[in-house]
Amino acid sequence: MTEKRTAILLILDGSGDRGVKKLDGMTPFQAAKTPNIDRLSKEGQNGLMDVIAPGITPGSDTAHLALFGYDPEEHYPGRGPLEALGAGLDSRPGDVAFRSNFATVDDDMVVIDRRAGRDFTEEEGAVYKDVIDGMAIEDITIQFVHTVEHRGALILRGQGLSADISDIDPHETGKKILTCRANSPEAEKTARIINKLIQEVHKRMKDLEVNKSRIENGLPPANVLLLRGAGKHQDVSTLEMKFGTRSAVIAGGALYIGTAKYVGMEHLTVEGQTGTIETNFSNIADKIIETVESDFDYVFVHIKATDNASHDMNVEEKVLAIEKTDKMIGKILENVSTRIVIAVTGDHTSPVSIGDHTCDPVPIILWSDFIRADDVEQFSEYHAAHGALHTIRGKDVMNLLLGYAGHIEKFGA
Amino acid sequence: MTEKRTAILLILDGSGDRGVKKLDGMTPFQAAKTPNIDRLSKEGQNGLMDVIAPGITPGSDTAHLALFGYDPEEHYPGRGPLEALGAGLDSRPGDVAFRSNFATVDDDMVVIDRRAGRDFTEEEGAVYKDVIDGMAIEDITIQFVHTVEHRGALILRGQGLSADISDIDPHETGKKILTCRANSPEAEKTARIINKLIQEVHKRMKDLEVNKSRIENGLPPANVLLLRGAGKHQDVSTLEMKFGTRSAVIAGGALYIGTAKYVGMEHLTVEGQTGTIETNFSNIADKIIETVESDFDYVFVHIKATDNASHDMNVEEKVLAIEKTDKMIGKILENVSTRIVIAVTGDHTSPVSIGDHTCDPVPIILWSDFIRADDVEQFSEYHAAHGALHTIRGKDVMNLLLGYAGHIEKFGA
Repeated sequence: MTEKRTAILLILDGSGDRGVKKLDGMTPFQAAKTPNIDRLSKEGQNGLMDVIAPGITPGSDTAHLALFGYDPEEHYPGRGPLEALGAGLDSRPGDVAFRSNFATVDDDMVVIDRRAGRDFTEEEGAVYKDVIDGMAIEDITIQFVHTVEHRGALILRGQGLSADISDIDPHETGKKILTCRANSPEAEKTARIINKLIQEVHKRMKDLEVNKSRIENGLPPANVLLLRGAGKHQDVSTLEMKFGTRSAVIAGGALYIGTAKYVGMEHLTVEGQTGTIETNFSNIADKIIETVESDFDYVFVHIKATDNASHDMNVEEKVLAIEKTDKMIGKILENVSTRIVIAVTGDHTSPVSIGDHTCDPVPIILWSDFIRADDVEQFSEYHAAHGALHTIRGKDVMNLLLGYAGHIEKFGA
Repeated sequence: MTEKRTAILLILDGSGDRGVKKLDGMTPFQAAKTPNIDRLSKEGQNGLMDVIAPGITPGSDTAHLALFGYDPEEHYPGRGPLEALGAGLDSRPGDVAFRSNFATVDDDMVVIDRRAGRDFTEEEGAVYKDVIDGMAIEDITIQFVHTVEHRGALILRGQGLSADISDIDPHETGKKILTCRANSPEAEKTARIINKLIQEVHKRMKDLEVNKSRIENGLPPANVLLLRGAGKHQDVSTLEMKFGTRSAVIAGGALYIGTAKYVGMEHLTVEGQTGTIETNFSNIADKIIETVESDFDYVFVHIKATDNASHDMNVEEKVLAIEKTDKMIGKILENVSTRIVIAVTGDHTSPVSIGDHTCDPVPIILWSDFIRADDVEQFSEYHAAHGALHTIRGKDVMNLLLGYAGHIEKFGA
């Protein structure tokens, strides 16, 4: 009988690249010293992966849904619910959620600063939260949380909500906040709620003491919320419903935590884990090892540093982020290699020469100590093209990981 | 115009494997001496195949449906109808079929032996069949056949049947046979029929002379049937409807014969063919040659010996089964190589180190004397990864075979 193992999905965000001039035409994966990743490559199966489909540039959210086995064409709820979950709000099926900005408007609701100066302390955020979180408009209740800088998340809960509404953010200063409109009859209630909500939020925020202090300190007051990324939380089958697995997410970024929670993963916190290159790779390795040794069946681990370097077009930092991740993998292999099946890959290509997501496929390794190794001896976008996995799709990864790890029942008899 | 050839699908059941220690890390395909399979490999196209989908471990029944071109997610009827057809019963669309055990119960229907001693002669089986086959409950007629040991198959025929019912087998001795319950309103009639059927079968079986003889010989009497694997025979389009082809199955095992018949193949019997390594490979070759020379367009040939060896974790026997199959292929090629297109593959991987189905893809060769050969020179799980077929799905095989054999019309003009 197939023994059960813990499946690990390790995502180096935006790690896929193209040949870089500064690296003599090599990609960051080729240039980085990665003895541990190369060991996985040599002992495992390599391939390329179209995370969504050939030619389609994945977003971070849709890419992760696909990597978790959910067709984003069918299950993508929009950014709101994923960010809200990542921000710690308790989004549930039926809720409509948004990302939000603190903003500054004048008495006529004309936008003066779309980010209200951008900088907010936790203490300030808490004051605004106090007056917004828990509000009710008609039969709809509101949850709100401040996250970082001017950002936050907001949830509407109640009957008959829809995310099929227009944006209230004029996306320019000097323009009035827009009236929210329903794009379909089912969304009329939600549009009405949003319009009332914005008025009520403005009324509650505008005269707060904290705003007087901000003005005294030369900062714009936060006297309204701008909302965007409306999305309705769908009734998705969780990973536990689909596979009977207990699943965990180890990530520093809210969106990744949120997307993982959306499909039913438990968030495990790691001391010193951030979404930057300063994240504590050693502590992450320890948490992964601890998780493998507990009763989790699946762990999703997200490393954001490679993506930051890509967006900053900083190739040295991208190479460094890969090398740091490699050391982390070494620590994991040293401790639990006979108890895991692991996939190492990215969620999309982000060439440092472009600074943004592109549609190029990403390389992937699938490794366990029993898998049939192919002839590939090194991990890179180029070498992976010769591997036994050939080209797979992002949505195949969950089945491959859980299949080899013994968590998917035979189909038929 | 494309000449028409006979397409042959040759399945070495459960033949895919992983590196085996005893074979110095080689797989049975690598270790076996297979000059004829290697010739096909060298002259043909090689690849890997996810029989159902990446990461999904195929059952034998679902695997074969896929290999015959039927999406098992849509067309898998459950085990009952496939086994019933394989056992020689005339299952038809609308029927509900079961696998059955002869079992021993006491007067309170408490199960004493779930297999009634397991051993039954053909003569005994015929006696039980006489009192069960042809029964009627309400407007439903019953077909029954004894197969081997305590096993048999049973069919219900009539209006309004459903397989959405609970199991009657308590799966433990010392427990009463369970009342059959409907899992949905449409199944209420069927559940009622099954409960009446079991009572009636018990009444007819319990006082048979054959049971008195069994008791005198120290054997448990067979005085009831336990049913399992309920499935409703769907209204599938046969291969002839889909492609206009005349198709045959040459197999020793009932399940494979039944699955082939389910999609409209004719069963050709071969003297000395069994589901074991003692099967008469030479006679099978002769029958294949004869079939190619007749007016069949497609022949499915099933070799079970590789799977038995896998389940027994007997690597020497697995290698031997492959070598015997190789000789059979040699005989076929010698006689009809210019008249065939052939695919050689497995229905799933069953590593001898595991003794059960796993999700690893299987290697496949597609050969004809006109196909564009790739660079692969030897057949194995490892070599196939470098072939021109890359990775295909099980449901692609029928189209590839019939396409190259000239039996699929151009799509469009």
